[in-house]
Amino acid sequence: MFFQAPRVNIFALIRPMLYGEQSLTTVGEIGERALIELMLRRLTPMPGMPVPFWDDVMAIGLADGRAAVINTDMLVWETDIPPGMTPYQAARKAVVMNFSDLGAKGVRPQAFLASLGLPRDTLVDDVEEMARGFEAGAREHGGYVIGGDTNEASEIIISGVAIGVALQDRIIRRDGSRPGDVLAATGLFGDTATTFKILLEGYEAPEGLRDSLLASVYMPRARVEEGVALSSSGSATASIDSSDGLAISLHDLQRSSGVGFRLESLDASPAAREFAELNDLDPLDLALYGGEEYEIIFTVRPGGLDLAQESLMAVGCELVELGVATSDRKIVLVEDGEEKPVRKEGWEHFRI
Amino acid sequence: MFFQAPRVNIFALIRPMLYGEQSLTTVGEIGERALIELMLRRLTPMPGMPVPFWDDVMAIGLADGRAAVINTDMLVWETDIPPGMTPYQAARKAVVMNFSDLGAKGVRPQAFLASLGLPRDTLVDDVEEMARGFEAGAREHGGYVIGGDTNEASEIIISGVAIGVALQDRIIRRDGSRPGDVLAATGLFGDTATTFKILLEGYEAPEGLRDSLLASVYMPRARVEEGVALSSSGSATASIDSSDGLAISLHDLQRSSGVGFRLESLDASPAAREFAELNDLDPLDLALYGGEEYEIIFTVRPGGLDLAQESLMAVGCELVELGVATSDRKIVLVEDGEEKPVRKEGWEHFRI
Repeated sequence: MFFQAPRVNIFALIRPMLYGEQSLTTVGEIGERALIELMLRRLTPMPGMPVPFWDDVMAIGLADGRAAVINTDMLVWETDIPPGMTPYQAARKAVVMNFSDLGAKGVRPQAFLASLGLPRDTLVDDVEEMARGFEAGAREHGGYVIGGDTNEASEIIISGVAIGVALQDRIIRRDGSRPGDVLAATGLFGDTATTFKILLEGYEAPEGLRDSLLASVYMPRARVEEGVALSSSGSATASIDSSDGLAISLHDLQRSSGVGFRLESLDASPAAREFAELNDLDPLDLALYGGEEYEIIFTVRPGGLDLAQESLMAVGCELVELGVATSDRKIVLVEDGEEKPVRKEGWEHFRI
Repeated sequence: MFFQAPRVNIFALIRPMLYGEQSLTTVGEIGERALIELMLRRLTPMPGMPVPFWDDVMAIGLADGRAAVINTDMLVWETDIPPGMTPYQAARKAVVMNFSDLGAKGVRPQAFLASLGLPRDTLVDDVEEMARGFEAGAREHGGYVIGGDTNEASEIIISGVAIGVALQDRIIRRDGSRPGDVLAATGLFGDTATTFKILLEGYEAPEGLRDSLLASVYMPRARVEEGVALSSSGSATASIDSSDGLAISLHDLQRSSGVGFRLESLDASPAAREFAELNDLDPLDLALYGGEEYEIIFTVRPGGLDLAQESLMAVGCELVELGVATSDRKIVLVEDGEEKPVRKEGWEHFRI
C-alpha cells in the first residue's frame, strides 16, 4: 500500500488537540547530541546491557560470556554523500561506517543488512551498483551481506546494520580510559578534511596528491583487524571510532571516561601537511576538525604500549602515539610548549 | 560535516564516463521484488546461513545451536504513514513491524534500535514523542530500546532494527510447508483494509466501528507470544508475517515452500463483514488484499493441529483455520464450491 498522503503535515494541524501547547523548538536548533540525550531519557535501559548507552555500538548478552554486538547508521544521499561519489562507493561506504564502529570495539563484524529508501525514478542499474558496493564492502572486511529491504522514499537513503559476536569482557568500551593512559590511534589524521577542502571549498591540489586524497573519501577502509588485534591483546582501556573527527571523538571519549587528554605528539598525515604548506593552512586543524576518517582512537594502560604496538604490527598497522590521558578533564593540544584547547567541532548532524 | 551538494545529480552527468551505455529502467518500473532479486544476484551467501534469503528475518549462527536473529525495516513518513497517525504511533509501529517479523518466526525480540532521518525543522517535541513510541512498542512486547542514531534527511525516516536469539532448529522458516498441511493464522483479516477504505478513499463507517478499526491501523500489536508458543510446540512447518497482506504473503509462502493453497474456510473479521455489508463490498476482498495487518500465517503438519491450537490457546489466541496446502502450486479461494484464483496483490513498494 502506498499512502498518497498530502504534502501538508496533517499532524501539525491536529497536534494542539492532542498535546495542548507545545514548544516550537526544532531539531536544527538543539543539534544531534542534545536530541539523543532527550530521547534516552524516555528509555528504560535493558538490564545487564553489555555496552552502555553513548558507545559506538549496542549489544545484547548471550548468557554464556558472549554478546551479539550491533550497530546501525544511515547514509542520506543529499547530506552525507560528497560530490562525485558513485552509488557503488556510497553503498560500500555504508558498510565501512557500520563495520568501523564494531571494529573500533574489537568486534569482528560478520554480517551486514541494508535497508534502502529509493525514489521511484532511481535507475535499476544504480541499485545494482549499490548491491555490488555492499558486497565489496562486506567481503573486503571478511563479512557477508545477509539481506535487507527496499522502500520508497523521496531521496536515496541507505540504512545499514552491522552485527558480530564477541566475548563480552573483550569489548573495548568508551568508558575505560584512566589518567596516565597513553592516547593513541591506528593512523594519522587529516586526509579527509583536506579532501573536503578540495571537493567542497574549491581548493586546488597537485594531481598525484589529489588522487590519493580522493581515495580516502571515496574508498575508506574500516580498521577491523586492528580493533580485533587490540582487543585480543587486552592492552586497550577504551576506544572510539574516529568517524566524527578526531576532536569530537576525543570529547566523546572524555565524556564517557571522565578524563582529559593532552595531545603532546599530534602530527597530521603527509598529504595534509603538504596541502597545508601549499595553501598556508594549519595542518593540525585539518587533523583535528575533520570527519569521515575511519581510524580507531584508543587509550592504553601504562606499561601496555609495547603489547599494543606489537599486536597492531602483527596486522600491518603502525601505532601512532597522540598523547596522554589526564585527570583534569581538559582536552588540549600542546604545540611549541603551549597548550591550546581542542574545540568540540567536527561532524555533527543538524549543526555546522 | 554537512555536504551542501547541489540538487542536480552530479553522478548522472559522470555516469556515462564510468559505465558507458546504461539502461534507463527505473525501480518504479520493475517493483520491489524484482529489485531485490537483482540485488541478491550480486551477493555471496554467508556459509551456513541459519535462514535463507527471502525469509522474514536474517540470522547468524552462534556455533552452539543458537542463532542471533535480526530484521530491519524502514518507515518513510510520506509513503508509509497513514493520515492522522501521530509521531508516537508511527514510532511504536516501527517497533511492531520489526518485532512482528521475528515473532512470526517464533523468535522473541529482545531489543530494538532506531536510526532516524529528520528534517532540520522537525519539532523536538515530536522526536520526544517518537522516543516514547519506541519505548512503548518495545516494552509492550517484552523488549528494550538499546540505542540508535539520528541523521539529517529531507523527510522523516524511521529505520528500525529488531534482534533476538533463538535455537536455530526452532526458527520457523518460510520453506517448510508440505502438501496436506493445514493452513492457519493467528487471527481474522480485513480490519486494516477496511480502515484504509475509510482513511484514504472517503468511505463512511458508524462511530463505534470506526474507533476499533482506527486502532487496528494506529496501534497494531505484534504476535510475539503467539509465534514463540507455536515454535515451542514444534507443530508449525512454515510461517510468514502477514504485513504485506494475506494474498501477497500466501504467494511468498508458496514461492518459498513450493506448494499451493486452497482457502476453504476463509472468513473476514467481524468489522470487515459489517463494513462490507453496509457498503456493498466483498468482505473476502478486504481480508485478502490488505496489508499492515500483523498476524502470523502458518502451516501445521497433519495431526499437529490440536497441538498448535493448544499452544496458541495457552497465550490467549484462537487459531483460525484458513484451508490446506496442496501440491499443485495454485492459490485458490473456495467460495460456494467454486475455485477463484487469489491474485498476487496487496502491499508492494514502488507498485500499486
